[in-house]
Formats: sequence, C-alpha cells, structure tokens
Amino acid sequence: MINDNKKKFKSLKKHVFEANLKIYKSNLAISTFGNVSGIERENNIFAIKPSGIDYKKLKPENMVLVSLDGEILENNLKPSSDTKTHIELYKAFPEIRGIVHTHSRYATVIAQSLFDLKCIGTTHADYFYGDIPCTKKISNKAISGKYEEEIGLLIAETFKERKIDYHYMKACLVASHGPFTWGLDLDEAVFTAIILEEIAKQYYLTKALNSEVKSIQKNLIKKHYFRKHGIDAYYGQN
Amino acid sequence: MINDNKKKFKSLKKHVFEANLKIYKSNLAISTFGNVSGIERENNIFAIKPSGIDYKKLKPENMVLVSLDGEILENNLKPSSDTKTHIELYKAFPEIRGIVHTHSRYATVIAQSLFDLKCIGTTHADYFYGDIPCTKKISNKAISGKYEEEIGLLIAETFKERKIDYHYMKACLVASHGPFTWGLDLDEAVFTAIILEEIAKQYYLTKALNSEVKSIQKNLIKKHYFRKHGIDAYYGQN
Amino acid sequence: MINDNKKKFKSLKKHVFEANLKIYKSNLAISTFGNVSGIERENNIFAIKPSGIDYKKLKPENMVLVSLDGEILENNLKPSSDTKTHIELYKAFPEIRGIVHTHSRYATVIAQSLFDLKCIGTTHADYFYGDIPCTKKISNKAISGKYEEEIGLLIAETFKERKIDYHYMKACLVASHGPFTWGLDLDEAVFTAIILEEIAKQYYLTKALNSEVKSIQKNLIKKHYFRKHGIDAYYGQN
Amino acid sequence: MINDNKKKFKSLKKHVFEANLKIYKSNLAISTFGNVSGIERENNIFAIKPSGIDYKKLKPENMVLVSLDGEILENNLKPSSDTKTHIELYKAFPEIRGIVHTHSRYATVIAQSLFDLKCIGTTHADYFYGDIPCTKKISNKAISGKYEEEIGLLIAETFKERKIDYHYMKACLVASHGPFTWGLDLDEAVFTAIILEEIAKQYYLTKALNSEVKSIQKNLIKKHYFRKHGIDAYYGQN
Repeated sequence: MINDNKKKFKSLKKHVFEANLKIYKSNLAISTFGNVSGIERENNIFAIKPSGIDYKKLKPENMVLVSLDGEILENNLKPSSDTKTHIELYKAFPEIRGIVHTHSRYATVIAQSLFDLKCIGTTHADYFYGDIPCTKKISNKAISGKYEEEIGLLIAETFKERKIDYHYMKACLVASHGPFTWGLDLDEAVFTAIILEEIAKQYYLTKALNSEVKSIQKNLIKKHYFRKHGIDAYYGQN
Repeated sequence: MINDNKKKFKSLKKHVFEANLKIYKSNLAISTFGNVSGIERENNIFAIKPSGIDYKKLKPENMVLVSLDGEILENNLKPSSDTKTHIELYKAFPEIRGIVHTHSRYATVIAQSLFDLKCIGTTHADYFYGDIPCTKKISNKAISGKYEEEIGLLIAETFKERKIDYHYMKACLVASHGPFTWGLDLDEAVFTAIILEEIAKQYYLTKALNSEVKSIQKNLIKKHYFRKHGIDAYYGQN
Repeated sequence: MINDNKKKFKSLKKHVFEANLKIYKSNLAISTFGNVSGIERENNIFAIKPSGIDYKKLKPENMVLVSLDGEILENNLKPSSDTKTHIELYKAFPEIRGIVHTHSRYATVIAQSLFDLKCIGTTHADYFYGDIPCTKKISNKAISGKYEEEIGLLIAETFKERKIDYHYMKACLVASHGPFTWGLDLDEAVFTAIILEEIAKQYYLTKALNSEVKSIQKNLIKKHYFRKHGIDAYYGQN
Repeated sequence: MINDNKKKFKSLKKHVFEANLKIYKSNLAISTFGNVSGIERENNIFAIKPSGIDYKKLKPENMVLVSLDGEILENNLKPSSDTKTHIELYKAFPEIRGIVHTHSRYATVIAQSLFDLKCIGTTHADYFYGDIPCTKKISNKAISGKYEEEIGLLIAETFKERKIDYHYMKACLVASHGPFTWGLDLDEAVFTAIILEEIAKQYYLTKALNSEVKSIQKNLIKKHYFRKHGIDAYYGQN
C-alpha cells in the first residue's frame, strides 16, 4: 500500500516535518519535547516525529509512518513515545487531521495547577469556544497499564463527560502534564498550539493579578468565536 | 474623489502599512490580531489594515480606504472587522489622525482584570496624564446589536462620563478585550501603543508585588507630563 | 578651557556615547528614556546624553559638555532633562566618575512598590554590600521647586541618613520613579546598572513567591562582596 | 604527567570551553557568573573556567587544569573561585564527570526562597527523579571557614541525610545562592542545567498561581523518569 502511495506519503512526511519544526521555532518545545503528527484519512495512516531526535537534526524522511492499529509501516526509526496517545485521539475525533503535543510553558503551568483555562477575554473567544478543559488526574491504574493510550482515552472521556464538541474546542490540558491541540487540518493544529500558549499566558497573568476573574458572558464568547468561524463568519477575506 | 487625490492616498496607505508593520515588529500583535488606521481629515477618509491578512504578506496597496460613513472606496479587500470601532472614535475625537488596536499582552491582561491602569510611577506620567481608564463591561444589548460600533461608543462614553480629555489621555482599555490608542498624528498613536505595553507591564508587576500600591501625587503626574507635553515642555530639543 | 582640552573631551564624549548605547542595547531603556554621563574630575566637566534624542540617531558629537555649575559649554544641543540630578550626585559623591539613570523594568517596579531591594541572595551580595535603598517619596515642595536638583539631593540625603557608603553601594531607587547607579569609573556605572536589573528581577520573583523572605546573614554578604571587592578580593585574575 | 597526556588534556579543555560557552549562550549566566568543569577520571584531573574572565574573551587554552588536591597544574590563570566546591563534589560523587554552576534566574529564585523544587509535573519527572533538594542555610562557621569547600560538603551532606542518589538526581539548589548540576558525562551536566532552568520556571509559575500545588504521584514520577532512563527506557532511538 505504501508503495502505491509513495508520492502522497512523501508529501505528508514533509508537511509533518515542517509542522514539527514550526513548533520548535515558535519556542513551544525545549530539548526534544513535543511531537506533531498528521494523518491521511483515506487510509488512516499518519506520519509522526521519531522519538528523542534533536529538532536541529530532524529531516523530512525521518518522520515515521504508523497505522491506526499502531503498526509501524517503515522500520528505520521508532516513532514518538506518545504515538499511542495520537492513535486514540484520531479514533475518538474522527474528523481531525493533525495533532500537536507540547510542553509549552504557560499551558503546562495551568495543567500543573489542575485548572481549566477559563475564557476570560475576547482573544481567547476568537479561537476557543469556551473554557479549555483540564482533565482529571490520571489514575494509578492507567499509569501502570497502557499509559500512553490511557492519556488519549482520558482526553476523549473528558470531552464526552463534559459534553464538549471537539470541532469548536481544539485543545485539552492533561493534568500535571501539558497541552494537546488538534485541527481539521494539520496547519490548524499547529496554529492552535501557538495561539493556546499566548492565551494561556494571558490567562495566567490575569488570574495571578485578579484571582476572582470570571469567564466572560456566553454571548460575547459566541460573538467573537463566530466572527471568525462557521458559515456566518465575517472576519478575513473569504 | 479618490482619483483626484491618488498621490495623497497612496502616501497615506504607505504610512498606514508601515504603522501596522511597526506594531507587528514591536511584538504587540500575534497572528493577525491588531489593526492600525490613519485618516486624512480634509476628506475624512481613512486607510486601515485589511481583515485577517498575515502581517508577513501585507503590502502597502492592501490597505483599504474607507469613508466615515463606512463606505469602502476601493473594492479589492475587506477592511479590518474592527473598522466601525475606528469610525466611532474618529467621530468622537475629531482631532485624532491615527488609531491603533492591539491585543498586546499586558494591556490585555489589565483589561481582562477589569482594572484601570493606575498611574503609579513617573514613567507612566511622562506619557499619560493620569489613570488609563478601563471601560465597563460591554452590555449584552450591545453585543447582539452593532457590536463593533458599540465598542467605539463605549470608549467615547467612558471618556465623557469620567470627564477625561482625549488630548491628554490617548489610550483606553476595553473591558475583557484589549487596548486602543490614538494620536494627533499616526506616529503618535503607534508610539503610544508601544509605551502603553511597557507601562502596563510595569503596572502589572508592581500591583502583583504590592497590591496596596496607589496612584502617585497629582502634582508629580503634572510635573512629568508637562515636562514632555504642552507649551511649557522642556524635554527634548524643541 | 574646552579648546585646550579638545582631545580629552572628544574622548570623554565618545566614551559617554558608547555607555549610553550599551544601556540601550542591554534593554534597560525604552524609547528615549534613560541617560548616562561621565565626568572629567580634573576640571569637573561632564558629558551627558542630549534630551529626547532617539538612541538610534545618537552620535558621539551629540553628547553635551556641562560644568558642575550647570553651565552648558557647547551650544548645539540641550542636555538631558535630568542633568541637574547628575550634578547633585557628582557633588555629593566626589569620587564617582559616571552616572546611569534608567527606567529598567524590574528596578522601576521595585521603586514603584516603594520597597528597598533587600539582599536576599549571594548574586546580590557579589555586587551590592547590603540592601539597595529606596528613597522616601519626593515631597510636594520639591516637586514644585527645582525638581531635578531635588532628586539628586534626595538620593544624597538617603545615603547620609541611613549611613550608607556610596563606595560600597553604587545604586539607589528613587521612589515612584526608577534607579540611578554610579561607579568609580564610567564602565562600572554601566555594569552596575545591568547587574542591578537582573538582581531586581531575582528579588522581585523571590518576593512574589515567598513574601516572608529575609535578607541573608551579614557575614554571607560580607564574604561574597569582599571576594570580589577590596584588597582581600580573590575573584578574577588580579 | 601533563606532558605525557598533552593531547588528552587539550581535548578536555576544548570540551570544557565549549560547555562554558553553551551555558552562556543558553542565557544561564550573566556577566562572568557561572562555571563549568569536566574531569578526566583516570588521573582525576579536571579542567575549569578561569576566574572572572568575560565569556566573550574566553578561549579553549584558558581553561585551568586542577588536581583533586587543589593543585593548579598550569600556571597561567587562576581557576574559578568556586573550584573547591567542584573538588568536593567530584570526591563525594565519584561517578560524575562534569559539573555546572550557574546563577540562572528561576533556579536561583527558588534557592533564594529556600524551597525545594517539588516535582509537580511530568516535564520535571522526565529528567529528575523526585523533588530537587534545596540545602539548609550555610552556617556562619562554614562562611568564616573554608567557604567554597563547605558549599560542596553541604551539597554532599544534603544528599546523604535525605538519602538521595546522585545518579537519579543530578541537581541541587544551594540555599540563598543558586544551582549546581552534574552528569555522568560533561554534556549531561550542561543539558541538566538547561532543563533545570525551564523546570524551575514552570515550578515557579505554578506555585505562584496555585500555592497549594503538591508533588505528583510517585508512580507517575517513576513512569516518566524510567521511560527515559535505565535499562527499561523506551524513549529515543536506542
């Protein structure tokens, strides 16, 4: 199958490589932390960053192709140790085509504080339709079991329980750990990771100054989010 | 009219383009956030950034010419979604010639905290004659109505109610949203946006360390402001 | 006199120019804030930055020569509006040869908080022998009077009243305003301004985390300060 | 002995020089603060930064060779004033081959707060197996005595008393002073210093936002640490 689609997957790997690099250049990843994947939905095959390779040495051909069953379809390099989290998210959120995981500073700090990232301003509402959820703490059972899969399941469960639609909320904080973002395409997943960090920093600073700060009015969130998203959007040139 | 003044408006658009770029390069705008306009007061026609265009791709000829009635005088690109806020400010403050809107980090954080930016030091007093006001929260009625116009009206109302003179206070924080600055010319509006962010950061840090901090003495504000402004100014070379 | 010493003063102006630029490049001054002067003690003539000139446009020949009586010895440009503060400091501290005034962020924030910058770590003690004093608030009488002179007098008074020796403590925070530093030579004044800002940031962050933090033991301050200063110093290559 | 091993020590000095420079370029050292050493365990001779030399002027040949008895084996430059701290650490932790001391901002701030750097997230657990200890305050007796040796002994004592294994915890905060890190090789010591500063910043910010934050579960620490370290590690390509 891979052979039949050589060109397509070469292009996917290049795109995923560039997305990984963008995360690094945007200062969202230190050392080798963080990983980005992009999926070809026709065959449900995704490309992901290899594990523990220095960003400066990364090449497009290093991206690892993996199926949704976890099968590695090329055997040169091991994929990211978080690969199974990506798989669970691709399964749970069937319309997403890209996933980004970072330990970006402020999003991680809020995740470590075990707080939701509340929608306290219009900058937030422009891109996230409501509070960005932080999961519950991962259970000891999940840690001892299939840990990376469990993280994916924990995110999916959080969205289900709290009735959040992944189309309008493209980010989740994993408690004590860090953020995951996604998008209907790969570029959106990367863009969301970048905006998330700025939003997280603004939330952090506001909350530290005024611990009583509350989420803004629901219709102000709605106004700003749908100025930029959906069929009635009037922001931008389209 | 435009044809008669081709040269003049070409120059205005170039100036507004450069001002937008300066905001971006000064790290006051992330992504496509933020917009700058400049007005030709003879005809009350202003040039403004187009909506949602990446700063890196912006060109002088992309600036959109708009009349104070909201008429778009060239039809290649849509103007900033905040255009109507600019119109209301140009109407309310008839002597200003440039407006800057950003989501710069610390000014936004103070706006999200719903605090006035109090004048607690001489750096502030050098450029802003007193506390920088934060508006009330925007009403649900205004959100459902002509939202962008209402933001402009809210700023104008804040200045009227609190008897603040826009000649001496060239900035306002919109609650839960972010800052607007202006100037008697465009460069002053841009300069004010840059200084505001530093002042906001210094206020933020001081308030976080010493929550009891108070505005400085009125005559110290007066001393510093009029060292740099007005007919008795003795700062600078003029 | 100037003519007799043309070469000497040309060299002084170049040195003062470079010192001003170093302050700017070290991010201690935004806009046109901040000023550096250096003095020739033989004739008690000093060179100082002109008022309100953009750092990017500054040239060595723009530095203004001034006597300790406040006489401007060349008449092309107006000296810094803070010139009279420098004069008072050169009079009060007769062995210093350079003065730096900035609105550097964290030192200013502590000055705005009206706090002394306590010696809470060895990094501080390496360069400042004890707590860095913050003056009292400047009086209304001083503001209405010879304001800039009064700031110099306020610093000198603070050192006298609190029995601080300007040879071992080369910095002072002016309440609600910002820092002044000095040195036995000009380079030391500049170096002290740079270190002060880092120390101020470390103090700020520590105090914000642990509001109970206390000054370190006196003999630890002594140990660190005199490792680097005085005849028993054993740091460095001399 | 040196002559017999000229090549080996030339290579060690080059390596130590590069490590010192990396610390400086990673913004972990301001001015001349900070020092890195690397040891040749066969002869127990180490190379260390000379005292008080500007990083920009440092050259490989400036690194000073010192024996574990404190003997300087080349007599051009004085070694770092902290050399005796390095000696004590090399003695106490016989398998380490590199030591880094900095005054990096956030690690120093936590040391000045006299707090342990608690393990509150998985980013921390990826590299440090548990809370990073802060020593007790150094005693007046130690300050008056062989101060630099005493700092080394204080670190060793802290690890012994609290039963911490230096193989799994490669960092220590010295109270009121700053961090030391080490590694089984020199590059690991440098890497640990860089990661430590980011971890310290994330801890700082979290603690400032949520003062109640607690260390994460022991098995979550274990899971993350041993994903990356030890014989069962599955992170990376080996």
